[in-house]
Amino acid sequence: MEPYELTASEAARSIRDGRLTSEALVRSCLERIEARDPEIRAWIHVDPALALAAARDADKRLAGNPSAVGPLHGVPFGVKDVIDTADLPTTHNSPIFQGHRPSRDAACVAIARSAGGILLGKTDTVEFASGGRKAATRNPVNTDHTPGGSSSGSGAAVGDRHVPLAFGTQTGGSHIRPASFNGIYGFKPTWGAVSREGVKHYAVSLDTIGWYGRSVADLALMAEAFRLEGMGETAPVPLAGLRVGVCRSPVWSSIEPAGEAALHLAALRLEAAGASVEPFELPADFSTLAEVQDVIRRGEGRAAFLDLYLGDRHRLHEELADHCEHNRGITARSLTEAYDVAGQCRARFAGLFERIDVILTPSAPGEAPKGLHTTGDHIFNGIWTVLHAPCLAMPCTHGPQGLPVGVQLVAPRFADARLLAMAGAMAAAVA
Amino acid sequence: MEPYELTASEAARSIRDGRLTSEALVRSCLERIEARDPEIRAWIHVDPALALAAARDADKRLAGNPSAVGPLHGVPFGVKDVIDTADLPTTHNSPIFQGHRPSRDAACVAIARSAGGILLGKTDTVEFASGGRKAATRNPVNTDHTPGGSSSGSGAAVGDRHVPLAFGTQTGGSHIRPASFNGIYGFKPTWGAVSREGVKHYAVSLDTIGWYGRSVADLALMAEAFRLEGMGETAPVPLAGLRVGVCRSPVWSSIEPAGEAALHLAALRLEAAGASVEPFELPADFSTLAEVQDVIRRGEGRAAFLDLYLGDRHRLHEELADHCEHNRGITARSLTEAYDVAGQCRARFAGLFERIDVILTPSAPGEAPKGLHTTGDHIFNGIWTVLHAPCLAMPCTHGPQGLPVGVQLVAPRFADARLLAMAGAMAAAVA
Repeated sequence: MEPYELTASEAARSIRDGRLTSEALVRSCLERIEARDPEIRAWIHVDPALALAAARDADKRLAGNPSAVGPLHGVPFGVKDVIDTADLPTTHNSPIFQGHRPSRDAACVAIARSAGGILLGKTDTVEFASGGRKAATRNPVNTDHTPGGSSSGSGAAVGDRHVPLAFGTQTGGSHIRPASFNGIYGFKPTWGAVSREGVKHYAVSLDTIGWYGRSVADLALMAEAFRLEGMGETAPVPLAGLRVGVCRSPVWSSIEPAGEAALHLAALRLEAAGASVEPFELPADFSTLAEVQDVIRRGEGRAAFLDLYLGDRHRLHEELADHCEHNRGITARSLTEAYDVAGQCRARFAGLFERIDVILTPSAPGEAPKGLHTTGDHIFNGIWTVLHAPCLAMPCTHGPQGLPVGVQLVAPRFADARLLAMAGAMAAAVA
Repeated sequence: MEPYELTASEAARSIRDGRLTSEALVRSCLERIEARDPEIRAWIHVDPALALAAARDADKRLAGNPSAVGPLHGVPFGVKDVIDTADLPTTHNSPIFQGHRPSRDAACVAIARSAGGILLGKTDTVEFASGGRKAATRNPVNTDHTPGGSSSGSGAAVGDRHVPLAFGTQTGGSHIRPASFNGIYGFKPTWGAVSREGVKHYAVSLDTIGWYGRSVADLALMAEAFRLEGMGETAPVPLAGLRVGVCRSPVWSSIEPAGEAALHLAALRLEAAGASVEPFELPADFSTLAEVQDVIRRGEGRAAFLDLYLGDRHRLHEELADHCEHNRGITARSLTEAYDVAGQCRARFAGLFERIDVILTPSAPGEAPKGLHTTGDHIFNGIWTVLHAPCLAMPCTHGPQGLPVGVQLVAPRFADARLLAMAGAMAAAVA
């Protein structure tokens, strides 16, 4: 087994135990990228010398004081290119930011580094994680298909084992959907639990940083680095008796046969493994939340793009400039109404978990669509993003075209640690 | 009259009409700063050569195409030093950021520049606009007193006529309070209406960028640059019959005699000028909002400072590091409850304006306190910040110590243009 094949948690343990050096792991990842990325195109920028120097430094620090290392010690991670890095350019896949070098790391990058992580490189993204130009990234399972987006490169890089961990972002469904399309695990924490400082704004009351891994333990490792409440204090959850609410969600009409089959299969497998599985429905008025997400995204996008619209309009994609112009008639009034519906539903959401522990729901309509002109539909993600709820994508099965199809778990706000613990109990049964 | 004495709107008009050059105005401001700032200490960084070059360029552009200039053409502005500027260091008044040079302007700086404004320099601030180290700035009216904070330098610089416009920020009462203490006008727009990209995070669901001027027209000029909804389309408001609700607010027990006198005087003057003035009370349950503000500020502050806490703890002020440690027992549960109360009150707030057009309420307990160890109390501001409401500070009178005491106007979310129009009608009567 090559080091690049290890999950982040396996790699972290091996490094800590002295069975693997960070340098060997990083070198293995770099070789994998060299072999695969000409076809996959997950990465916009990789600096091998910089990553190797950081890895050697991590190896030295471990030798000096093995008890003082953080949870990610020596483990490389990728960063979606809408997130600032001081050592590498940050382009947002925008003509305006080509060659742009931020002066500091975004808070999430700094925290991952403080936890011992090694910045490997920047991954391709839809322009500003918003709209306009797509990533050049291809789905590693079938390169004729999209890896999803906007976190296209991060999803494909983790899926194709270029790197064990990577950051993405989600405003609608930019993080959870690519996890499903690439057959990997993805975690979007509660809104606000992780600082977005140094990350391009799109819709500030929705934008959330997430991360990808190849196991639930990988996701937990990063959650530990961010010191999410309850991490390290949450007991393992037994699968027996865990109450799983299967939620088709108010946008079920958008489901495809492969997505329906995955949800059904996950439910059956969980039930067979001892979980208590039952149907779960959101209250009827929650059905407006997909539209609410769209109004907030576009309404807040107006403020987010105004500086570029006024200062560099000809290089801002028409689709983004549009947020600053007629913007599909979204006004302060419709934005205010959307805020208030969102706020009311958020306040009621935790109360819906009386008879269930966790929601099981689609992570995407089905398999990754064909073509790189699309990143698929975020319709099964927007509702949960508006609710500020922690969401976790896990692999489940493959569709008729041989592409991965996952499912999504959702818990109440700030139940991040509990969601990770429940997912830890469910993953083996579901996959 | 020296050019530095002009308000922003007077200066903009004079420049547009060819009666004043931007260079002459900037030179006059620089001379004023040279004469006054050794005592006032409003500025952390001023680059005269850079500002003069930008002013000369503005003069040339005006000569070339007088019809194409923006609302702030040729007018200098100051920037609170928690806001990124590409040409000048951004220190956050923190030892961690000494000499730090961001690679790009914050969105608000870029937009002010797109509107023709000239960046004059960076103003002193409470550390990270949060806590810890105070600004060195003194109140221009009496240098033994604080100018307020955390937007200390911006408030004093506009008050002492170093610059006609300046940006501040508000998470609790960091913007409106200094306006009152310095005898100037201040505007805090609706939360989210102005991009905070490139501004230090503190509490992301509260942080708001505001600006100072020496007239309501100055505030409107900047609001135009930000294209706030309704600007340029809102008809002048007649003072006669304007329904003003005088709100002592649920924190009235913190009022001082000078604050009480100012509120009373403003109400009397407005009534004498033809407004319809009546008492106004917030519903009883709104009284928790001051506490809600504190919980959200501290709860979100935990995520905001974690990167510095983990990476540079010994240089992060103890008061800020505390957000990442015990944090006065604030948990995910108390933060969630605070979010929900805030959301419910926000949704109901506009409905309270059935019988009134605008709220008149204290902007601070009274005069600026003595000493630079304090910036005064934000107790009269936090409620409105939580409500995401646009707030406008206007001068009213002076207290027993000869220091200015203002009042505050508040309107429903996104009624920014209407609030500016109402304030335009009220200002002459109130002052």
